[in-house]
Amino acid sequence: MAVVNKTAHLFDKTRLEALLNRRFFYAPAFEIYGGVAGLYDYGPSGSSLQANIINEWRKHFIVEEAMLELDTTIMTPAPVFETSGHVARFADWMVKDSKTGDVLRADHLVKNVLEARLAGDKEARGQAALPKEEEKDKKKKKKAVKATAVQLPDQVVKDYEFTLAQLDNYGGAELGELCRKFDIKNPDTDNEVTEPQQFNLMFASSIGPTGQHPGFLRPETAQGHFLNFSRLLEFNNGRVPFASAQIGRSFRNEISPRAGLLRVREFTMAEIEHYVDPLDKSHVRFKEVRDVALDLLDRNVQFAGSTTPTKMTIGEAVDKGVVANETLGYFMARIYLYLLKVGINPKRLRFRQHMANEMAHYATDCWDAEIENSTGWTECVGCADRAAYDLTVHSNKTGHPLVVRQALKDPIVTEKEVPEFNKKNFGKTFKQDAGALQKYIEGMSEEELSKIKGELAQGSTTVTLDGKSFQLSSDLLQVERKTFKQSVREYTPNVVEPSFGLGRILYTLLEHSYWSREQDVERGVLSLPPLVAPTKVLIVPLSAKEEFDPLVREISSKLRRAGIFSRVDDSNTSIGKRYARNDELGTPYGITVDFASVQNHTCTLRERDTMDQRIGPIDQVIATVTELVEGEIDWVEACKRLPAYDGVQAID
Amino acid sequence: MAVVNKTAHLFDKTRLEALLNRRFFYAPAFEIYGGVAGLYDYGPSGSSLQANIINEWRKHFIVEEAMLELDTTIMTPAPVFETSGHVARFADWMVKDSKTGDVLRADHLVKNVLEARLAGDKEARGQAALPKEEEKDKKKKKKAVKATAVQLPDQVVKDYEFTLAQLDNYGGAELGELCRKFDIKNPDTDNEVTEPQQFNLMFASSIGPTGQHPGFLRPETAQGHFLNFSRLLEFNNGRVPFASAQIGRSFRNEISPRAGLLRVREFTMAEIEHYVDPLDKSHVRFKEVRDVALDLLDRNVQFAGSTTPTKMTIGEAVDKGVVANETLGYFMARIYLYLLKVGINPKRLRFRQHMANEMAHYATDCWDAEIENSTGWTECVGCADRAAYDLTVHSNKTGHPLVVRQALKDPIVTEKEVPEFNKKNFGKTFKQDAGALQKYIEGMSEEELSKIKGELAQGSTTVTLDGKSFQLSSDLLQVERKTFKQSVREYTPNVVEPSFGLGRILYTLLEHSYWSREQDVERGVLSLPPLVAPTKVLIVPLSAKEEFDPLVREISSKLRRAGIFSRVDDSNTSIGKRYARNDELGTPYGITVDFASVQNHTCTLRERDTMDQRIGPIDQVIATVTELVEGEIDWVEACKRLPAYDGVQAID
Repeated sequence: MAVVNKTAHLFDKTRLEALLNRRFFYAPAFEIYGGVAGLYDYGPSGSSLQANIINEWRKHFIVEEAMLELDTTIMTPAPVFETSGHVARFADWMVKDSKTGDVLRADHLVKNVLEARLAGDKEARGQAALPKEEEKDKKKKKKAVKATAVQLPDQVVKDYEFTLAQLDNYGGAELGELCRKFDIKNPDTDNEVTEPQQFNLMFASSIGPTGQHPGFLRPETAQGHFLNFSRLLEFNNGRVPFASAQIGRSFRNEISPRAGLLRVREFTMAEIEHYVDPLDKSHVRFKEVRDVALDLLDRNVQFAGSTTPTKMTIGEAVDKGVVANETLGYFMARIYLYLLKVGINPKRLRFRQHMANEMAHYATDCWDAEIENSTGWTECVGCADRAAYDLTVHSNKTGHPLVVRQALKDPIVTEKEVPEFNKKNFGKTFKQDAGALQKYIEGMSEEELSKIKGELAQGSTTVTLDGKSFQLSSDLLQVERKTFKQSVREYTPNVVEPSFGLGRILYTLLEHSYWSREQDVERGVLSLPPLVAPTKVLIVPLSAKEEFDPLVREISSKLRRAGIFSRVDDSNTSIGKRYARNDELGTPYGITVDFASVQNHTCTLRERDTMDQRIGPIDQVIATVTELVEGEIDWVEACKRLPAYDGVQAID
Repeated sequence: MAVVNKTAHLFDKTRLEALLNRRFFYAPAFEIYGGVAGLYDYGPSGSSLQANIINEWRKHFIVEEAMLELDTTIMTPAPVFETSGHVARFADWMVKDSKTGDVLRADHLVKNVLEARLAGDKEARGQAALPKEEEKDKKKKKKAVKATAVQLPDQVVKDYEFTLAQLDNYGGAELGELCRKFDIKNPDTDNEVTEPQQFNLMFASSIGPTGQHPGFLRPETAQGHFLNFSRLLEFNNGRVPFASAQIGRSFRNEISPRAGLLRVREFTMAEIEHYVDPLDKSHVRFKEVRDVALDLLDRNVQFAGSTTPTKMTIGEAVDKGVVANETLGYFMARIYLYLLKVGINPKRLRFRQHMANEMAHYATDCWDAEIENSTGWTECVGCADRAAYDLTVHSNKTGHPLVVRQALKDPIVTEKEVPEFNKKNFGKTFKQDAGALQKYIEGMSEEELSKIKGELAQGSTTVTLDGKSFQLSSDLLQVERKTFKQSVREYTPNVVEPSFGLGRILYTLLEHSYWSREQDVERGVLSLPPLVAPTKVLIVPLSAKEEFDPLVREISSKLRRAGIFSRVDDSNTSIGKRYARNDELGTPYGITVDFASVQNHTCTLRERDTMDQRIGPIDQVIATVTELVEGEIDWVEACKRLPAYDGVQAID
């Protein structure tokens, strides 16, 4: 088996982007109209890759745990997001160029400028060379922040590093202060920037012909789950815990999206809302994941200005209280396992805990699965314990109870003092004061009532209300001890929410999968796992000659019956070029049909990464490739079953 | 095998809707906030049903014909829809109540009022009884148009019927005239209505923080295909015909949606754009569908005021020119086959041709697949030949060529006369007139040039331009015959577009599948085909006792391995009630596990419609149900394999 060197060439983002564009994984939407920042269309390869990532998500989460799937609307009337807090708070801080009026996102501005200065400092200290990107950037029209080799005082370097480590912790006022303190200007123009202002990230519209009903496009699918909570609970026969799940489009009107698929205005997300008893956040399957080890970057480490994660099993993390509870920990481990399954490199995956200011005020704990890529570490999955916030606010607003009613096996029995009024006498005696007085006594504490009870037993008691004294005897009021039995416990469940940005996962996966052949940097390969690869098998007839048609049809139909998605490439170019094209598409296996195939009913099987070719009878090759695609055997095993192909097929 | 009478009870929409609500197939979105007309959420059953309908669509169309799948954005900048014509024309006619200002859709108003009058006429003539629905309608707050038994003159009945038959043919002016002519008022208030005005159905928003970039939510996915045409063609190695396909959300701000899932403001659609040579609209697989017979309602029949379709094979329809071309006919047949596969009743399915005014002005031909349901015939799939319209307008607007360049096997050779100027002499002689004169001569016809050629051969010729005469001799101008060779043909492909409203298909399918048990009208059943049923097999342990757990787990996991989606219902209620609940969910098969199962490793298999129960060893039951779900055998065959279950299992 051939040895493959995937790291012969340094990762080159420009080459990868050219490949993705050329093979139509995705492209700027409305490109022929000049495009719109932050909107992308997925082509055939990207759509298939996305569909496979979604399909595996459905299996790994929904089917595995019998979650209740939902498909709720995107268009949402304004009152829903007023209640949820999005109208007031779902915003980013933007600054404007004081002269041109160009709009920039404040935290990104600070980050880009400080990072460029630190890069310049490293260059000046001889620790690293600056990338030579000026040429390319000019072509793109968009200026990257240019780093120049200027050495900074040690204390300034420390200051910058500290600021960057806790950037997510700053609000508008702090960001404005940082711009002044560090003299941060718009790098495109060198002009001052204004004080940060909030910009709400929801797209607004209005519903119906009269324009009287404002609406927003949802920025997440979560509210659609919460509003249906009662129905979901009923569907689940009233039992908790359970989870709802939804895969769908969401929208965020980003201020100035510039990072390809990593920051877009319209995206497909997958969200789980797991409803759990607030008094018991254990998870019945936690034991299955206890030993999964994760790179954890907790909030204390970040607050100390460090970004070095700690490797820890999720069991240990929950035991030590680093992660708040078992349910949250269970999902963090499941997220990790899912990301590995679709092909994310575990060495470039960490979980970062939200810092105090960064976390929604209601959340108990929140960890982001961050994946490293050419732009740094990117949040791809959020996993938050949202406590009872959402269900509570919607319930309060609408008056519709969003609660669990749990029948108690052992009813809770309580005793308490209860005032009993002789209404007729009481009314006659106190006339217009009777009502207020009764209410006042009913509102008394257990202790006060006990005291009155004692005094009444002695003859009479005096109650003072609004400076007026009322004398009461037992013909007007008696206090009695009564027993209460509670057989149902009513509570608002807490919600643990794993929330996946599928486009970000897709893009980082493409970066992790990309490399160039050692012998030729121009020959790019996407080593996508067969599970998510758009096409599993490429069928390549030697030429478009009709004599190959029956075999191509036979192989296609046998693969289809085995559930393996294949494509035929009978285009008018060499087999080598066709394989090179499919290496770029990430197709893991190729089957070649030639004259020997017609005569001997054999074909060759090619593996993408090694370019190894084996040969065998058609049915045996199909059986082998089926097991390969389904992950039952690996290429080493396949090589034991099929002899190597020496490039010459026996023909009579 | 039990005999099933599915028509013992008349279809009752109210009961069906109660079932769909109770079992959370779908529900009004934002219900706890009072709901928004035309927005619905799909619950677990509806989501699964939809996912299965989509999955089969993907197989039947995309996989079967190797279509190129796309996933393009919903948010669209305004210029795209200005070019496509949607900003100017994607509108409905609305009228307002002259006193209350309530908004009504004009064509629906005319339809509802005339239909009610015709129903009243039938009642008065003793031909039919009016439905007794007043009570229910009052509760719903929404008033249906009340029919009263008034006999109409025969001519008026004819007038009404004629108007209804071609209602889709009327524009705003005609609708206004009809309201006056037939004295149509707002039935809710009995007030006059205003003249019809256009209301654009696109939801508007704006993109980016400055508010300077207006956008719309797409009302169809089609434009996303067209804008990517060049990339798609390249992906397909430059070959035509091919098709792109997309499944996604679209939005229409309907004026006053009142028809449940049949008219909604947000919906999932599936669209195919099939690109074809305008000179050759044959389809290579047409022969496979030639004999498929469809109910066709062509435009001539409708224009004559009739709504009676003609049964015809698609082969005959294309041969006779009833359907414009093979490609259009091919897709109509494929649509028909798809709808039958997911469970639509073929007797309630027809294809209606668009009438002249109804069809988009650019379209060559258009047929809607209409499905009958309790509200009448509803368009569920459109199938239009959009000609070259879309690609042409976008290409003209952007300057980006959206064309096919076809290499010609035999280059086209043409000869023509070409003027050759002696530029130096020509300029010197005619000075400031030289430019205009040259241009004029170059624009001459073949005939004129021949004439000049002859005269030049004789010595000289005179050309008159703007009343001025110029004399030319062969030292200034020569006309020569030259040969031209064209080896590439460039053309804008035509587009045949099948466009599916998946929510409408889903809802009509639910109506077609619903019936009540003969012995009890309250016991509803949804006879969904296994292919689309949300759950294929329900596993029912006799009780939640732990001793059943190993068998339940065994059956679940064996079914999962066979690719059959099952659910366990171990809720604390009788087996009969659990089966009744799952009849409402449309679950086709049930497996019961009881004490005999534990002892004998057997289980019973129940069929939903007949309620027949059979018994056998667990593995044999699983093998049988797998074949049933995959459509390889039917229940009659299953009954041959498994003995009937008499309700008593042998236990030692």
